[in-house]
Amino acid sequence: MEQRLSVITLGVADVSRAQAFYEALGWHVDAGIDDETDHIAFFQVPGFIVSLWDRAKLAGDSAVQDPGGWGGVTLAHCVPSPEEVDAALDQARAAGAAISRPGGKTPWGGYSGVFVDPDGHTWEVAHNPSWTVNEDGATTLT
Amino acid sequence: MEQRLSVITLGVADVSRAQAFYEALGWHVDAGIDDETDHIAFFQVPGFIVSLWDRAKLAGDSAVQDPGGWGGVTLAHCVPSPEEVDAALDQARAAGAAISRPGGKTPWGGYSGVFVDPDGHTWEVAHNPSWTVNEDGATTLT
Repeated sequence: MEQRLSVITLGVADVSRAQAFYEALGWHVDAGIDDETDHIAFFQVPGFIVSLWDRAKLAGDSAVQDPGGWGGVTLAHCVPSPEEVDAALDQARAAGAAISRPGGKTPWGGYSGVFVDPDGHTWEVAHNPSWTVNEDGATTLT
Repeated sequence: MEQRLSVITLGVADVSRAQAFYEALGWHVDAGIDDETDHIAFFQVPGFIVSLWDRAKLAGDSAVQDPGGWGGVTLAHCVPSPEEVDAALDQARAAGAAISRPGGKTPWGGYSGVFVDPDGHTWEVAHNPSWTVNEDGATTLT
């Protein structure tokens, strides 16, 4: 299996509400389904796709039991400066996120904070001076 | 907040064991920490970074409560043919994954199955004839 990841699907209670949250962060839906058969939103991000889908349907499709709550996955959004961390956290709060950890210096020499989206998915917003956010939006380790 | 995602961190019970699982799938660690201070594995994938870290530390760092189990996130790995779906699922089973849904045709005109990694993270392996797996490994919606 090649070293790549094609899609991350976030299970949500209401796709319209979740989509509105990500749109309030500045994202736009690039494709999806929204008719009597289903509702799925696809966001093209550099290198792969972020998807929003009904959490119960996602659990069923993944053939797993869902105990509810956080499941040991945290996403991160890297930005080029500490100031942009605080700005993104402010934007997330205004869009309806909870701030579980406010922006601050980290033990690894960076600056970050964490917001929790309305469905409980955690996002660290981070400035990591050791990594590169490239012009095309891809993040690389060096 | 720009439309991009920089890192996905999977919380695991034992980073060495989890790393061995992903190495058995054919992945290789590109950077990380493995000393008396901590153990983190970073895999560079097209466009972003996949990370493995202790689940309790990740919950603490994300400042959330962890009820355990699946948390409404499913990852997907797209491949160019149905045969490669079955081959990847066989490889995952051999590496220690559970197969929660065997390979088969999907309602959306593709072919996919799902494996569950040793820490409960779900991966759909999918052939989606509408999407493109590019030469650089990036997956795009058209």
